[in-house]
Amino acid sequence: MTDFQLPVGFRFSGVAAGIKKSGKPDVSLIVGDGPLTAAGVYTQNQVVAAPVLWCRQRTPSDSVRAVITNSGNANACTGDQGLQDAQTMCRQVAAAVAIDPDDVLVMSTGIIGQPLPMEVVCRGIDAAADQLGDSAEDFVRAADAILTTDQGRKVASRVVVLGDQPVRIAAMAKGAGMIAPNMATLLAVVLTDAKLTPTQAQELIAGAADRSFNSVSVDGHTSTNDTLLMLSSGASGAEVTAEHLPAFAAAVEQICQELAWALVADGEGATHVMRIQVTGAASDGDAKVIARAVGESLLVKTAITGGDPNWGRIVSAAGAAGPKIEPTKTALKINGTPIYSDGGPTRYDAATLSQSMKAEKEVLVELTVGQGSGQATRWASDLTVEYVRFNSEYTT
Amino acid sequence: MTDFQLPVGFRFSGVAAGIKKSGKPDVSLIVGDGPLTAAGVYTQNQVVAAPVLWCRQRTPSDSVRAVITNSGNANACTGDQGLQDAQTMCRQVAAAVAIDPDDVLVMSTGIIGQPLPMEVVCRGIDAAADQLGDSAEDFVRAADAILTTDQGRKVASRVVVLGDQPVRIAAMAKGAGMIAPNMATLLAVVLTDAKLTPTQAQELIAGAADRSFNSVSVDGHTSTNDTLLMLSSGASGAEVTAEHLPAFAAAVEQICQELAWALVADGEGATHVMRIQVTGAASDGDAKVIARAVGESLLVKTAITGGDPNWGRIVSAAGAAGPKIEPTKTALKINGTPIYSDGGPTRYDAATLSQSMKAEKEVLVELTVGQGSGQATRWASDLTVEYVRFNSEYTT
Repeated sequence: MTDFQLPVGFRFSGVAAGIKKSGKPDVSLIVGDGPLTAAGVYTQNQVVAAPVLWCRQRTPSDSVRAVITNSGNANACTGDQGLQDAQTMCRQVAAAVAIDPDDVLVMSTGIIGQPLPMEVVCRGIDAAADQLGDSAEDFVRAADAILTTDQGRKVASRVVVLGDQPVRIAAMAKGAGMIAPNMATLLAVVLTDAKLTPTQAQELIAGAADRSFNSVSVDGHTSTNDTLLMLSSGASGAEVTAEHLPAFAAAVEQICQELAWALVADGEGATHVMRIQVTGAASDGDAKVIARAVGESLLVKTAITGGDPNWGRIVSAAGAAGPKIEPTKTALKINGTPIYSDGGPTRYDAATLSQSMKAEKEVLVELTVGQGSGQATRWASDLTVEYVRFNSEYTT
Repeated sequence: MTDFQLPVGFRFSGVAAGIKKSGKPDVSLIVGDGPLTAAGVYTQNQVVAAPVLWCRQRTPSDSVRAVITNSGNANACTGDQGLQDAQTMCRQVAAAVAIDPDDVLVMSTGIIGQPLPMEVVCRGIDAAADQLGDSAEDFVRAADAILTTDQGRKVASRVVVLGDQPVRIAAMAKGAGMIAPNMATLLAVVLTDAKLTPTQAQELIAGAADRSFNSVSVDGHTSTNDTLLMLSSGASGAEVTAEHLPAFAAAVEQICQELAWALVADGEGATHVMRIQVTGAASDGDAKVIARAVGESLLVKTAITGGDPNWGRIVSAAGAAGPKIEPTKTALKINGTPIYSDGGPTRYDAATLSQSMKAEKEVLVELTVGQGSGQATRWASDLTVEYVRFNSEYTT
């Protein structure tokens, strides 16, 4: 973590409060030294967890002071009690660090439908408030405390120079999709010390989400808790002017893509990440729908698991996706090798291609569906016996 | 098969021509004693096999004389050669039984993207033409020769009395969805000796398809070859008048549902059939989309595999399906036991319910999503380790 550049103006902590039976860290706190600009992108599921309802009402904002997150319990499908508990979490933070409860955002992830153990949660919040610090180690503790069934930590950082002023961006994320029994949620927080207006922050994070977290799939299941926040302290003093916006936006997008890729790679049981690039569609929207259908096809996923360049499943998934395609103009490459063109299979060395699919973590699927200008890229995990075994274990 | 009532006016045969390496039957022939009324419902995939293109142009019709089907090769993604081969199959039948090639329908199922072995196919057609017969055994031979990776034969029959005239309906089907490596296709043929006009036949089969074959899912993958045909000989002499239409239509729908259920139950690796009944949606169309999303959710499928009454996955799949739901009016029963209501979990005996889910082949999922009048029923298989293992074996 030596070269991990943290934005200034924030303090972090992560503690094990005892919400998780495993004893792993489960309460994560981020506090701004002063008011933070905040923006958010939230789940599109209509069944929405209490913390999402709380945050949606409070972003975009220029006065957020803290984000409290618990893992191990999603506080979803918990009714009025859930809303009260989310509010209590914010009050507990506010009391501990002397800010207004309305300036605290809250996220939860874990089991659905069970009330939060509030005594444990509140004790954890107090402990987290006592241990706030601004080192990379403190940041990592906060990042680890939002994980659930993730195999590994998910953090990223960048430095962008605006004119002659360096600004820092750092982010943390957890778990792709609903990847485990009763576990929900993608959570991610992007932090920067650039000066952003609430509108800038909202546009930046919504745009980045579209080409990162909204373009990945493990099991196609949109959770009840998905939350992506962007917070800026402005402590660098550097404003993101129109001139510098493209470079800054690109950095935000890259960070989000880096974490989104990590989410897919760490998907339940996943052995491969498909990078699905669709071109030639009538519109970008059409290309996105087709790329999603390919990435969520069980037959495509299982073919990738087996290192099988099975063009029949991919082309047929595209043809059934909905948007118009031109079958006789359809072409497909896997890992750069053309295997289908002009509506029919082409000659290639199947054994060599299969070998390359098995050897690499990422498998590149390039699908042309016609002569339009629409294109999209999407990342999806493969589907393994381990996914099914894990998710069919009896847990209720 | 002693009580299997065959419609009169048809002859059948099924032979092993050698298209399948296994040596199992692979050429199936149905011939009408005279002109047949014919109607069809076809795949909505834009990547369409040659036989589908041929049949779509020739139904509805009042002059069809025969249906030739091969299994072991789908004749899909085979370009102009595929179209010529489909035509050649019809010509071979026409020559063998002295009819017009344009009055022959053709279906294929099996491997995608490989040319048909036409010499083998044509020899098989001649052999099938030599062995035509009108017994139940002949019908069964024809039904067996359309199977691919199906575990078992799929046939059904009914007798309906129109006024005082009995008419017979019999049907055969194969394989649900794209259930095996490179294998495609649902194929089904419904035969009757009632007198139907082409318009009647088309309306009957389209209506029945909507509530049977179009309401099932194994892996959500629409194949390139799906074909459902209805053929009537009129040999009973009984017309289906407006008075008798409801009873006749109900019988056609029941037969299609019986076969559709069998397809799901025989889905690749499937251990359970979910019967998903959605009510309270804003429209029947909304209910259908929600039922489909629940049935195709990997997390729901794997929960059912494990006998896990996991309401969180089901409710969340419904909430993310797209159509408007009323979360606080949402309620869920599994096998008749209420486990979720008014937007929250309810008390129930989880062990007893799980036991009933494990004990029965069919699991009943009753989901209310609001107070609307829209409803739909859908059948879906569960998802097992065997499905993934089979479909991730390297086969290209």
